[in-house]
Amino acid sequence: MGKFVYNDLGKQFSEWFDWILREAEVYDYGRYPAKGMGIWMPYGFQIRRNTLNIMRRLLDETGHEEILLPLLIPEHILGKETEHIRGFEDQVYWVTHGGLEPLDVKLALRPTSETSLTYMESLWIKSYKQLPKKYYQVVSIFRYETKATRALLRVREVSMFKEAHTVHESFEDSERQVREALGIYRRFFDALGIPYLISRRPEWDKFAGAIYTIAFDTLMPDGKALQIGTVHNLGQNFTKVFEVRIQKRDQTIDYAWQTSYGISERVIATLVSIHGDSRGLRLPFKVAPIQVVIVPIPAGSDEQKKAVTERALELAKVLKDAGIRTYVDLRDDVTPGEKFNFWEMKGVPVRLDLGPREVMQGFVTVFRRDLMERSKVAVEELIDYLKDLGLKIDEELSRKAWEALKSRVVRTDDISEAREFLRKGYVVEMPWDGREDCAVKLSEDLEADALGIPMDEDTSWAREKSCVCGGKAYTVLRFAKKY
Amino acid sequence: MGKFVYNDLGKQFSEWFDWILREAEVYDYGRYPAKGMGIWMPYGFQIRRNTLNIMRRLLDETGHEEILLPLLIPEHILGKETEHIRGFEDQVYWVTHGGLEPLDVKLALRPTSETSLTYMESLWIKSYKQLPKKYYQVVSIFRYETKATRALLRVREVSMFKEAHTVHESFEDSERQVREALGIYRRFFDALGIPYLISRRPEWDKFAGAIYTIAFDTLMPDGKALQIGTVHNLGQNFTKVFEVRIQKRDQTIDYAWQTSYGISERVIATLVSIHGDSRGLRLPFKVAPIQVVIVPIPAGSDEQKKAVTERALELAKVLKDAGIRTYVDLRDDVTPGEKFNFWEMKGVPVRLDLGPREVMQGFVTVFRRDLMERSKVAVEELIDYLKDLGLKIDEELSRKAWEALKSRVVRTDDISEAREFLRKGYVVEMPWDGREDCAVKLSEDLEADALGIPMDEDTSWAREKSCVCGGKAYTVLRFAKKY
Repeated sequence: MGKFVYNDLGKQFSEWFDWILREAEVYDYGRYPAKGMGIWMPYGFQIRRNTLNIMRRLLDETGHEEILLPLLIPEHILGKETEHIRGFEDQVYWVTHGGLEPLDVKLALRPTSETSLTYMESLWIKSYKQLPKKYYQVVSIFRYETKATRALLRVREVSMFKEAHTVHESFEDSERQVREALGIYRRFFDALGIPYLISRRPEWDKFAGAIYTIAFDTLMPDGKALQIGTVHNLGQNFTKVFEVRIQKRDQTIDYAWQTSYGISERVIATLVSIHGDSRGLRLPFKVAPIQVVIVPIPAGSDEQKKAVTERALELAKVLKDAGIRTYVDLRDDVTPGEKFNFWEMKGVPVRLDLGPREVMQGFVTVFRRDLMERSKVAVEELIDYLKDLGLKIDEELSRKAWEALKSRVVRTDDISEAREFLRKGYVVEMPWDGREDCAVKLSEDLEADALGIPMDEDTSWAREKSCVCGGKAYTVLRFAKKY
Repeated sequence: MGKFVYNDLGKQFSEWFDWILREAEVYDYGRYPAKGMGIWMPYGFQIRRNTLNIMRRLLDETGHEEILLPLLIPEHILGKETEHIRGFEDQVYWVTHGGLEPLDVKLALRPTSETSLTYMESLWIKSYKQLPKKYYQVVSIFRYETKATRALLRVREVSMFKEAHTVHESFEDSERQVREALGIYRRFFDALGIPYLISRRPEWDKFAGAIYTIAFDTLMPDGKALQIGTVHNLGQNFTKVFEVRIQKRDQTIDYAWQTSYGISERVIATLVSIHGDSRGLRLPFKVAPIQVVIVPIPAGSDEQKKAVTERALELAKVLKDAGIRTYVDLRDDVTPGEKFNFWEMKGVPVRLDLGPREVMQGFVTVFRRDLMERSKVAVEELIDYLKDLGLKIDEELSRKAWEALKSRVVRTDDISEAREFLRKGYVVEMPWDGREDCAVKLSEDLEADALGIPMDEDTSWAREKSCVCGGKAYTVLRFAKKY
């Protein structure tokens, strides 16, 4: 146990990240005997469960229906859309044997579900009256990554993939859906205090089979951009090859339109990394498995000690009844100081310290993990205080995280300045003439990746500038070193 | 749509089952282009979600911790316990390629997770102080079934597998855990109104790698017994091969003890089959995605029609605020009669019919699906009435289902009588001398399967009898035609 002391989290991020995942029992990685696969441990699983609950609520509220498709996709189905299979063929796991027999048809572990779902949609959907249709599922997907794998960040089994798939009568309605999806993801990341940049990916970096891709990226402590969500307009690419024909309002028959959008456990990786510090996790109140931990401070006579324990248990009951996830740490082989360190490491947002003085005088000492600050609160005000504090903590975590991101986004039209900023872990926005070959060249010169065109800010400033490639700029291209 | 008319559900069960899964949009089966794999449709997924919530609550309350292990198990891990791999080797799917390359080590799609989890436990668990430890996960498992597959009943992707795995300091504690597990499963099936028989499986039918297996079986409408839950005492079989050594209370080192227990989507198959009738589903109030559907009956003037719709929406809000899952069917291209049939087919436990008379006189007509009975209830009493009704419906469904099961269990020591009962779809209990070869012979003579020794009833009656094999009986063996 103990802290992870660092001078510069940016430089030691990788070690810190491994330390906290193991220490806080979030995700056991690197010890399972198959590369790129880890185990969600109980505490991590609770964080995941609470996080997914937020997502499910957002999706259910907006008319999305949860379903579950098979994991295995026959080769001829996965391969039906040419662009799609070209994008995935290097990274698909194949099942070739059942028992001791070879299979007639090879089965892919799904890398994503556009193909298998669209195949089924061709059976389910016949008329505009059924549309829009919005499905989602939360599943494992598999990518045979050949790059170095990293816990939660680059894994071969992505085990927290939430993929949504929608079907529409018209292109216009699919565009409306893209906007809805962007809104849902904004609200989702906002709920978690995760700051993001929204960019329309360059052509060469869009999802295989999409018309275009819009991505949410965040900036990790090591200065690298991490893609944490994507929204694709699929047009009619999949519905054409799988023949999802619908009767339209005007009685004509046409192929349906689709979108899809996904997030993964990178959300948890971000939650851990963006809010964490040298003492460990700092979890938002909303998703913390334990929102309030009560630590009895035994002192004085046996009677006083007993009174402290009793008050702790009473308080816990009251808090639980008020819907606050509460835990009392009654371990007797650990000192209060060790308990403090432990729960700080676990990222529990609020701790209540309770000694004989607190019991006698009818107050509790409330410690908030994010600011490491104590205050005294009268017992009768405690519940209101804690509910309010929960909101404040989440706002504070969010505010700091947004501040950190915003301070690391710069605009420049100077290529050597841009290179310098990128080396220091900044996101750089440059005027751009919109030409693909220019973007490719720039990426090479900058030794960075093009995140795409900003969708979350006014880009008109660039129009007065020239593109580094020489022409007149009409938009902006974002660059970062990417995961 | 419409009803599924049958003379004898027992004989037409298979067609009825396929009809209702498709019609009520529970599970799409037989159309996905890989055998033995189906799709959970939105309505079915909601039933599944509500059912799993009951299970999760029972497990969380009793100190079980949810985790998530990788799907893929390397060959040398799966194969480490000899009995275990012998039991599964014919039915394991193997991943042999990643992208276009063959893998160094073949990876199995988990058929169950004892091996991979015990491997990790050898890293996690060192001392009795950490015990008992109770893990569970809800995942897909895969079995390359060569028998004919059936929707939800015999599939190749079991996509609703809840497997629990526990670790203990002593054999005694593992026995206590078996009793706890049996209690949890009883409460679970009781909550769903699913009747069961509990039997200790004969030696040759226990889980591959277990000391013994206790199973929950129910009787389906076609008179076949269906295994719906199993509890295994694994002894030290897995901890020995994976070297899970713990320090014990007395400072000695010993291998830990384990149990495991599981349920699957067969629970949903049972829920559908045991309670359903010719009109369709009859869902317990507890797990129904829609507990109350409101059907406005438009009649009279436009003003009256408007008043009916408004009252329906008002009522729905009040019900939802009271925590009742409510839906208002406002479709205007469907007659009330069609709506009645539709929601009866969907198994919604309670329907509220609301016409101008109801609005004027301040009551609603409450229709309960299980008994197909109507009654009038004053609006101000509605919420209390519905909450109470929900309990009554669930009790009634449970009572009827238990009655049906109990009426189909008979005791006899006459072999030709036994054969006759078995042919008619009964469970038969016979005095038994406890010898395995006798049980095998009996099974053959009866053309039925031995479910095992009853664990849920007094078997002393058999001790006055002789075993059919000739010797003195000391216990009872249950037989049925099994799925």
